[in-house]
Amino acid sequence: MPRTSPGETAPPRPGRRRSGRPGHDADSVLHVAARVFNERGYDGTSMEDLARALGVTKSAIYHHVSSKTELLRRSLDLALDALFAVTREEASVSGPAVDRLDHVLRGSVQVLVELLPHVTLLLRVRGNTEVEKHALERRREFDHLVADLVREGIVAGDIRDDVDPAVAGRLLFGMVNSVVEWYKPDRGLSAEEVADTLATIAFQGLRRPRHRPGNTAGDTGHGDHGHLG
Amino acid sequence: MPRTSPGETAPPRPGRRRSGRPGHDADSVLHVAARVFNERGYDGTSMEDLARALGVTKSAIYHHVSSKTELLRRSLDLALDALFAVTREEASVSGPAVDRLDHVLRGSVQVLVELLPHVTLLLRVRGNTEVEKHALERRREFDHLVADLVREGIVAGDIRDDVDPAVAGRLLFGMVNSVVEWYKPDRGLSAEEVADTLATIAFQGLRRPRHRPGNTAGDTGHGDHGHLG
Repeated sequence: MPRTSPGETAPPRPGRRRSGRPGHDADSVLHVAARVFNERGYDGTSMEDLARALGVTKSAIYHHVSSKTELLRRSLDLALDALFAVTREEASVSGPAVDRLDHVLRGSVQVLVELLPHVTLLLRVRGNTEVEKHALERRREFDHLVADLVREGIVAGDIRDDVDPAVAGRLLFGMVNSVVEWYKPDRGLSAEEVADTLATIAFQGLRRPRHRPGNTAGDTGHGDHGHLG
Repeated sequence: MPRTSPGETAPPRPGRRRSGRPGHDADSVLHVAARVFNERGYDGTSMEDLARALGVTKSAIYHHVSSKTELLRRSLDLALDALFAVTREEASVSGPAVDRLDHVLRGSVQVLVELLPHVTLLLRVRGNTEVEKHALERRREFDHLVADLVREGIVAGDIRDDVDPAVAGRLLFGMVNSVVEWYKPDRGLSAEEVADTLATIAFQGLRRPRHRPGNTAGDTGHGDHGHLG
């Protein structure tokens, strides 16, 4: 299920191994490296371990990359580039802020599902090396961008004004990022379904507006038709 | 700011060091151990490292616990016991399911903030040892409990029926669990404020119900009073 719609730019998709040639192209090397880093920890993984996981020699890996650090950098960049690509899509830059935020959230879910091992690695980065510090800086930049969208939406009157934009942004991406913890690609749940549920919670909330004792502020009273189809 | 209200049971609070006696009581040993496990990884931490971090001798630690495994088990149990204690509070077991879910979410945020290093450790458990497998089993049990509340709320008509209960439960706890990633105890944001924003997003959603093009399913039309105080 492709994430792109007309006018949008597709993020790179290195998560797919080319069938029949496991472990022999740069994409699958990166994919397996990210997976092994996630399993054993970056520090605990040697090029030897990666060669074994790929079923190739170390020199076959060095054909693609110069060092373990470069594998880390490329994996993190892959995840970050794809996330920032979402923020530059047409639907992320034009229209009401609340709709742009919706688009960024949904697009991010797609990126997480498509680049699962890379985003997982990104989310576990703790910032010991230059490469990790740089990745954390870009993550912070992304977080600011999301908080700014919440802020803009509040100013525009489309997002409720009783939330702190930074906290709301963190919590929204708490939902998005949780996907790397529990999403299993082989269980028939599509990225779209996850994105739909997430956007529903984020923007409409789970509660069906019926009788709400103690709250008379105006959100009550739709009775029997409070949910989308 | 205590989490308990009349009739509720307080979870243990080992996160507080007794002032003047750093590193010398069982609570602070456990607190520091969890913090060091989080920083260095459980496998990468020796009893020697813990003794150094506590500023005591190894034998002083063995006065409190028999092994590193026991420290891990006690830290994870502390977090899990506190989370399950929330689910047994009066407000979690009586009343409409949607309100019980609200209470469990808010209470969980409080537990995360109060037991930050222990819950952080819990959320990073990957299940290699018996202790970790047991913790993961209890986490799954907790997840089921949350999904069951969503399901019950749907049946009762208080929670919208266009979400998958399991996915919704995962996303809700994605918000809750994200707190360990970004919450800084010293920045003046209280657990209550985080819990309020979280509950607002989870149950009301961020979007102020004004003109919503393309959605005529009934959630529109409150115009100028769509937010709480």
